Amino acid sequence: LDTKLPKVGTTIFTVMSALAQECGALNLSQGFPDFPAPEALIEAVARHMRAGANQYAPMAGVAALREAVAAKIAACYGATVDAVSEVTVTSGATEALTDVILAVVRPGDEVIVFDPAYDSYEPAVELAGGRTVHLALPAPAFRPDWDAVAAAIGPRTRLIVINTPHNPTGRVWEAADLERLAELTRDTGIFILSDEVYEHIVFDGRRHESVLRYPELAARAFVVSSFGKTFHATGWKVGYCVAPAALTVELRKVHQYVTFATVTPIQWALADFLREHPGHWQELPAFYQAKRDRFCSLLAGSRLRFEPCAGTYFQLLDYSALSAERDVDLARRLTREAGIASIPVSVFYEHPPASRYLRFCFAKDDATLERAGAILRGL
Amino acid sequence: LDTKLPKVGTTIFTVMSALAQECGALNLSQGFPDFPAPEALIEAVARHMRAGANQYAPMAGVAALREAVAAKIAACYGATVDAVSEVTVTSGATEALTDVILAVVRPGDEVIVFDPAYDSYEPAVELAGGRTVHLALPAPAFRPDWDAVAAAIGPRTRLIVINTPHNPTGRVWEAADLERLAELTRDTGIFILSDEVYEHIVFDGRRHESVLRYPELAARAFVVSSFGKTFHATGWKVGYCVAPAALTVELRKVHQYVTFATVTPIQWALADFLREHPGHWQELPAFYQAKRDRFCSLLAGSRLRFEPCAGTYFQLLDYSALSAERDVDLARRLTREAGIASIPVSVFYEHPPASRYLRFCFAKDDATLERAGAILRGL
Ligand SMILES: CSCCC(=O)C(=O)O
Ligand SMILES: CSCCC(=O)C(=O)O
Repeated sequence: LDTKLPKVGTTIFTVMSALAQECGALNLSQGFPDFPAPEALIEAVARHMRAGANQYAPMAGVAALREAVAAKIAACYGATVDAVSEVTVTSGATEALTDVILAVVRPGDEVIVFDPAYDSYEPAVELAGGRTVHLALPAPAFRPDWDAVAAAIGPRTRLIVINTPHNPTGRVWEAADLERLAELTRDTGIFILSDEVYEHIVFDGRRHESVLRYPELAARAFVVSSFGKTFHATGWKVGYCVAPAALTVELRKVHQYVTFATVTPIQWALADFLREHPGHWQELPAFYQAKRDRFCSLLAGSRLRFEPCAGTYFQLLDYSALSAERDVDLARRLTREAGIASIPVSVFYEHPPASRYLRFCFAKDDATLERAGAILRGL
Repeated sequence: LDTKLPKVGTTIFTVMSALAQECGALNLSQGFPDFPAPEALIEAVARHMRAGANQYAPMAGVAALREAVAAKIAACYGATVDAVSEVTVTSGATEALTDVILAVVRPGDEVIVFDPAYDSYEPAVELAGGRTVHLALPAPAFRPDWDAVAAAIGPRTRLIVINTPHNPTGRVWEAADLERLAELTRDTGIFILSDEVYEHIVFDGRRHESVLRYPELAARAFVVSSFGKTFHATGWKVGYCVAPAALTVELRKVHQYVTFATVTPIQWALADFLREHPGHWQELPAFYQAKRDRFCSLLAGSRLRFEPCAGTYFQLLDYSALSAERDVDLARRLTREAGIASIPVSVFYEHPPASRYLRFCFAKDDATLERAGAILRGL
């Protein structure tokens, strides 16, 4: 079978997690917590399964969950979205991202992404027959160069994919970025795909600049998020996409044939939990900021350099004082020899730059972070 | 947003289930049981959630579940498949079907499907830029016309989608069908996508002719099934695809960017249950045959005509003695006025024939079937 995705191998997250397991290494590569999901949420899933909520959910998602999402968006971003026609539950944020790309991108269309970019965007564009236009976020600040965006926008530009808080760099966009994006895309017919899965994980008093705060942008945007990051349950695979009704119609045409519906008892449990714990997400910034600070303080005296991340649960570490190896080689070697797995950042670029970064996930309990710190200080 | 899927509306399953709910009608439209999933399975999910199995599963699926699938295939079909390189767990059979089509079908390729065809095949082909070639299964026998298949195969034919036991007709293919398919596709480079989600639901002593029984076909086939039908839990959305290693590589390239992984605690629970209840599926034919027979006997004296189905949990009823309405109109009217929802079969055709069938799901408890029978006898 000749391949339709010649550039694609196995995703780096699978590669590094498998290697970590094989080597018995601490796994700070793939982004997932090693502490439990809320007990009340787990018990709610069990309760709904026992009560018989085990058959197909509605294609667009359980109504109570879509209403809870709309309520959360109103509370967080002051935006009004219609639960019936503008919120769609998907089998993880990944499904939502790919659904949007398949629904919007036509053969020959161009899609702008910012490198380093999450690795699912480009293959989805390829499957849709589009072309990915990569714009680099220059290290070490990783700020978008809006003049470069202006220059890249052309008659074939169909979609711009943005991601804040940003994986893998941990940077967050500011109001000025969203305003500039609105300005550059005004009256162009370009759609926005906004990956906001780390929306509730921002630090040092920053505000998450959701596209949903910017009505002009939101009018042509698909905003994707997930419950996996917010509830420490990345394996439950429940995400969602918010988009204006006309865009949601097209999204659902794809969603209904990609997974049709998403696991029913977990949707009901999330709806209960969101209703019973309004504002639960307000605890996340302090919770993860303490983990970031602990992880960073454990690196004092190491040869790794860093700027503490502004959001997400990922910290980039610059290893250039330590090694001249390629990051993909170093990440493998550290997994095998030092017993710690990370993600090499160069794999998220079309043209990897000379900078040398590994990404570490600090969504780990304190004991794991201590062990990781000891290993990293010893390098 | 101009649509990429101009022929697609909301899937008929969503339309009819929503109408049934709105009207308070008995819902024999969308295929799902109204009786419980096994209690031991539900408790196993709860146990794995409490034990912390809530983070990402491996991309290709939990190893124990893939091994259980391989063991089941050996027991059922005498085929050896490698759990590591040939079995992939997906977020429902629907995801597997769409992943295969996206992985295999290139722009301009032709895909042969048999009408009436499950409604996800063609939109997936469209998204891949391919062209769907529809061959009718002529009523009332709904047997494939292999001479027509031979005539339809050409240099652009890339994939043939087959489905036995067949939804919506309830017919099952015989060994001769599989042999003819093998012969017609020998040395052509054509791939087979075999939708076998009702593999364990065949009646009157028939044998399910899985593609996995035919090594020559299996060598170029993707075989898709699901746990939803087998375990009375359509809302858990765990399916799988079995294909030779080289084909599985391409499938996983797509799967990893469509949903990446499937809900973790349910995968572990299914693995436990399959191991602890080997051969559980042997109960399904008798269980559903009794439901079919009950449903059919309840129709004695009605003006609806039928041939009892050979597999699946769907029964076609020919209403031509009752009404000259279009099936889509009658299905809506019966939902509103008679309080019973069904699926109009014409929506599964490119060129709907003159025959008049509604599809009823009999995966319902006896009380539901009695009420349905009473309504249908009164028509
Ligand atoms: C889909 S597995 C990757 C998880 C994740 O978002 C990350 O590690 O960046
Ligand atoms: C994906 S909802 C449809 C369920 C089903 O397989 C059917 O009713 O045919």
